Amino acid sequence: MSANTILLDFSLDPARINDEESRKDIVKLCKDNLEKYLVGLKLTYDMLTSDGYLCMLNETGSGTIVTIRFFQQGLITINVEYYRKDGDQPIISFEQIRELENHLVQKLKFNHGQSLPPLQRGPLTRFFPTADERVIEYDIDRVLYDQRSDFQKIQIVHSKSLGNMLVLDELQNISEADLIYTETLMCRGVEDYAGKEICILGGGDGALLYELLKEKPKHVVMLEIDEMVMQACNKYMNSICGDVLERLNDDRYEIILGDCMVYLNKFISDGRKFDYVFGDLTDIPISDTPTGEIWDFIRVILESSFKVLKPTGKFMTHGNGVSCPDSLEMYEKQLAKLTPKVTFTKSTAFVPSFMEEWVFYQVQREDANAAGSV
Amino acid sequence: MSANTILLDFSLDPARINDEESRKDIVKLCKDNLEKYLVGLKLTYDMLTSDGYLCMLNETGSGTIVTIRFFQQGLITINVEYYRKDGDQPIISFEQIRELENHLVQKLKFNHGQSLPPLQRGPLTRFFPTADERVIEYDIDRVLYDQRSDFQKIQIVHSKSLGNMLVLDELQNISEADLIYTETLMCRGVEDYAGKEICILGGGDGALLYELLKEKPKHVVMLEIDEMVMQACNKYMNSICGDVLERLNDDRYEIILGDCMVYLNKFISDGRKFDYVFGDLTDIPISDTPTGEIWDFIRVILESSFKVLKPTGKFMTHGNGVSCPDSLEMYEKQLAKLTPKVTFTKSTAFVPSFMEEWVFYQVQREDANAAGSV
Repeated sequence: MSANTILLDFSLDPARINDEESRKDIVKLCKDNLEKYLVGLKLTYDMLTSDGYLCMLNETGSGTIVTIRFFQQGLITINVEYYRKDGDQPIISFEQIRELENHLVQKLKFNHGQSLPPLQRGPLTRFFPTADERVIEYDIDRVLYDQRSDFQKIQIVHSKSLGNMLVLDELQNISEADLIYTETLMCRGVEDYAGKEICILGGGDGALLYELLKEKPKHVVMLEIDEMVMQACNKYMNSICGDVLERLNDDRYEIILGDCMVYLNKFISDGRKFDYVFGDLTDIPISDTPTGEIWDFIRVILESSFKVLKPTGKFMTHGNGVSCPDSLEMYEKQLAKLTPKVTFTKSTAFVPSFMEEWVFYQVQREDANAAGSV
Repeated sequence: MSANTILLDFSLDPARINDEESRKDIVKLCKDNLEKYLVGLKLTYDMLTSDGYLCMLNETGSGTIVTIRFFQQGLITINVEYYRKDGDQPIISFEQIRELENHLVQKLKFNHGQSLPPLQRGPLTRFFPTADERVIEYDIDRVLYDQRSDFQKIQIVHSKSLGNMLVLDELQNISEADLIYTETLMCRGVEDYAGKEICILGGGDGALLYELLKEKPKHVVMLEIDEMVMQACNKYMNSICGDVLERLNDDRYEIILGDCMVYLNKFISDGRKFDYVFGDLTDIPISDTPTGEIWDFIRVILESSFKVLKPTGKFMTHGNGVSCPDSLEMYEKQLAKLTPKVTFTKSTAFVPSFMEEWVFYQVQREDANAAGSV
């Protein structure tokens, strides 16, 4: 079940908005043309707003409601909303919406028209944002898992083109089509993990652990706080995590359930050292300044990671979308302030489930080369 | 300038929709929480609809209007719409919308909530559909060209991530980020064009001609009906078409302005033959049956192309999105009915400006191998 919302908008000379007669003509022509698809539209309400005019039309005998709004700045929005049963045809197809838009633009000599495919609103979340907050509609057709843990809302949904997809707090996280994400995070083919000691901070979906183990490291320890994410991925995301989430350890790896900061501190006091630390935790926040709880967390993670890295070790992490250069720059400024002094490289990849190009960082002590190569 | 439309929706037990007291409580809590962001919401209108209830709230002293609609099937939609000047901050950020959504879900014990980033409606078209009619918001920031030719509406817009993009009749066509599209259409690295005679049907953006010429064919003839597309691309899409649209011919190619069917028929009667014909015209239509004007055109193009192809020649064309298997299957059924008998192969690529995987066809006479390899 879903409510369908059809959105059209038109730009025109503001004078035509503010003239009552002209407005009436526009409403009449919109109504006449909408009646090609909707039976017997009746004006049920109208009002002058502080910035224009609004009227509401109801289709006879149905719940279809059309709202036409005039903005004095020279804009008209038309919203059509109705309930659509599963399996029912839309009352107006996208092709017809576009026809309607083009017809109105030509008949009413509007400067510009725009129309969106009907938006489906209901119990299946189909819309996720890009890093720069554009909307993307995914071809989600079912929810496989939907639970709230102590830490976050966890969902596994199925996308026709991406396969199963992990969604954390309503943000797309990783899908079965995202091997490139893990490979770019770990710089496969560039870094040599054979015989190395590795620590993963986070990584509950298991994909990074699974891919790293293929490279024959000496040992991997993974610190993940949310057991429910692991259980969900172990059940529904086997193509990306294999069987690594089946058990908490074998001779190649250990998964420690808990707050990664607690265990990082323990490693520091124990003097335990790694060749690689992966920050597979939160993304770099999109914010105006590098302040607040998440930025503090990011700084602490960086500092602590370098305390458990060998002098030649590398900190590897995902950043954010290339569409958010300001946030990436803020992150790089934090790197510049780190003790010890570090240098970094970047890798990027178009991540299918993000529908955008993503940036990954590889951070190393400035004096690493003097200490010998990894 | 743009109108901003914020959409939220919630699923809940239908009994709570149909009970007036429960409805009042929900409206009150929605209003109270919206007032964290909107000053002094006042109920200006409400009505019982044939499938539920609707009310409209206005923000004091502004044009912000909130519509809350209850559907008896167990769904609530909230639409917030207001005018936003260029450069103004949104009155509610997407982060706040998500907070509001989560808060209402928890407070009102809804089964599910969904919210979209604010949709910008105005003179800049930012929304384009995928082949299966999902909506994608592009990072379009300006229009470079906007004209209507005798054949279609032609726009060149700029996308921050894709560069310049050709838009024909409000559908994304090709962008500066789409070399993979042309390379997959021509099967670069698989087909050998050196010394070959090639005919392009359509191809007005010049990208295919430009890339083919790099492969040193004997001669390319391109039949394009819309000179204005070529002029627009020559001005704004040089990174994909180079300078091939600067002139209508040189010793390597000829561009003929006109209806490709007229010239195909002329080639047939002249007995002119090609090693490759590219169908760079309309996409395979998305329709329930392979009937109507466009399907007839597609069949005629196929038949005529094989009349100008050498026995070993190939017809190369783009199909549609992998998300439309029914349309692709219909196209393959048309191929199966062709005279002469043909076989085909497919190539696919994720096309950046389409935001989806696209299918391309390579069609050849069944007896081509007996006639010698191309």
